[in-house]
Amino acid sequence: MGEIRVLTESDLRQAVGLGLEELAAVEAVYPIISSGDASMPPIMRIDVPEHNGEIDIKSAYLPGYPGIAVKLSAGFFDNPDRGLPSLGGLMVVLDSETGIPQSALFDNGYLTDLRTGLAGAVAAKHLAREGEVVMGVIGAGVQALLQFKALNLVRNVTRGLIWARRSEAARRFADELSSTTGIEFTVAENVADVLSEADVVATTTPATSPLVDASMLRPGLHITAVGSDAESKQELDAGVVMTAEVFACDSIAQSARLGELRAALDAGFDKAGAVELGQIIDASSPGRTSEDDVTVCDLTGTGAQDTAIASLAVQRCMELGLGTTIDT
Amino acid sequence: MGEIRVLTESDLRQAVGLGLEELAAVEAVYPIISSGDASMPPIMRIDVPEHNGEIDIKSAYLPGYPGIAVKLSAGFFDNPDRGLPSLGGLMVVLDSETGIPQSALFDNGYLTDLRTGLAGAVAAKHLAREGEVVMGVIGAGVQALLQFKALNLVRNVTRGLIWARRSEAARRFADELSSTTGIEFTVAENVADVLSEADVVATTTPATSPLVDASMLRPGLHITAVGSDAESKQELDAGVVMTAEVFACDSIAQSARLGELRAALDAGFDKAGAVELGQIIDASSPGRTSEDDVTVCDLTGTGAQDTAIASLAVQRCMELGLGTTIDT
Repeated sequence: MGEIRVLTESDLRQAVGLGLEELAAVEAVYPIISSGDASMPPIMRIDVPEHNGEIDIKSAYLPGYPGIAVKLSAGFFDNPDRGLPSLGGLMVVLDSETGIPQSALFDNGYLTDLRTGLAGAVAAKHLAREGEVVMGVIGAGVQALLQFKALNLVRNVTRGLIWARRSEAARRFADELSSTTGIEFTVAENVADVLSEADVVATTTPATSPLVDASMLRPGLHITAVGSDAESKQELDAGVVMTAEVFACDSIAQSARLGELRAALDAGFDKAGAVELGQIIDASSPGRTSEDDVTVCDLTGTGAQDTAIASLAVQRCMELGLGTTIDT
Repeated sequence: MGEIRVLTESDLRQAVGLGLEELAAVEAVYPIISSGDASMPPIMRIDVPEHNGEIDIKSAYLPGYPGIAVKLSAGFFDNPDRGLPSLGGLMVVLDSETGIPQSALFDNGYLTDLRTGLAGAVAAKHLAREGEVVMGVIGAGVQALLQFKALNLVRNVTRGLIWARRSEAARRFADELSSTTGIEFTVAENVADVLSEADVVATTTPATSPLVDASMLRPGLHITAVGSDAESKQELDAGVVMTAEVFACDSIAQSARLGELRAALDAGFDKAGAVELGQIIDASSPGRTSEDDVTVCDLTGTGAQDTAIASLAVQRCMELGLGTTIDT
């Protein structure tokens, strides 16, 4: 039939990272989602109750893109007991004109981490105040690090604050970033202390009850909520969504089901008050209209981002001659 | 992280075919579906309207099975204009205890063809009359051939009749089977003529209006309807479902949405009159109770079959040392 390019995490890490072209690739998908031109079905989930696991499948066809990525994300929460990571996954890219498989990307979740970090930067680019910013990070995992690094693509970060449930992890995070980036990163006592000083905050936890409430908001703040991607998760109290001058999200349908919009709607928030990031990017919605606005962007993660980052990664790997080609 | 076994269509054709172990593997899944023990989400579909294409994703976790298959089926109906087949696809198998990807099966749809052929044999094994049978085939494609060959695993086929819209294809099919199998295969004038003589009939077309109506039924007949797997497709008139003594299907939920049960329910058929093949296999439903019963089985195709055939194929390929192993 043809040939398949098999790419490993190592290949993909060589090919794509936190760069401006990658940022532009992720940014480009939001207006396509919001215009309704993407074919992006709801997430498919296969539960594996015996092993405390689940597989989530995301995909999207974007008109004009040469490939369609289908992403399998695995979360198996007994894995740490076996010395294995909880999260993993892979992507397959099919030719969008013929449906023929082109590439298999065994990225162990790297591309998901990357496009999620970049999505936070896209949100901040369009919603956070201009100029120098103090960054706040809630959580101390991979995504906390990527949200910080990606924000530097779009804003001049002068100082950082972190709070995490695991205070030792927060300490290590702050020490490492302070020494490697030259940007002073300090550990805060609590979430409220982070919000009292930060201009841009990324919440990156698997919290199932709100960490941020409306009393912590102050004029000019921007929050990107990255953690919630399931019915059971929530990082922001409904009052945060209801108080903010702008509540944006990557996909209203997904945020209402799996993200921060869910609890807010339950609490009486009017869905008409939510806008998609794509509407702000294409200027069909104004976004921030004053220095004092509080803006929130909830990211649940979309198959469109996967198609965008996978398309760029495959193109780069082909240019660089990376991967193994197998005749099929 | 580990290693991935990449298998091509050629590897998979060497590893699995129309055998009794393959038949048993497919047969075993139906009671798991019907008992509710399988995790089998609805089919995910990505539409690609610009290229007259769609990608369907099926999957299932079956307790006790070492792997979970996720299957991508591509149907791109402008492909023949480019000299390419319309249908294709691949499967990925993840370890069911850890979620870690184990194998990528670039089968171009071979495993789907195979498990669908075997499913027809499973249906006939449990529903068709015992003893020698005359087989009728409606349609002259790959699945017509596989339904015929697979039936020979479970019944003594003495003679064959075929009707297809493309009469030349029907003629080639009959000539080839007559010469290669020694079983006399003749071309019928129309569908009614096939049903007037055949004991077991497989309908294998993409028909969007019924080919078989209740007036064509005669005592003792068994029909397996393989074609309908979409809202727009239908091979059997609602009267066939309503008249048959037994109406079975692989999955009631899927048949009601995508299969022959859909039109019958619209016409007033009581869903309680439908049984799943798994209920007949595990004897919780009696199935055929007399030589004169008319039995119908509608197969829409399930992710559970994909997990079953992929599991067996991967095991065989490992035993045979087939495929390419890539460190990830």
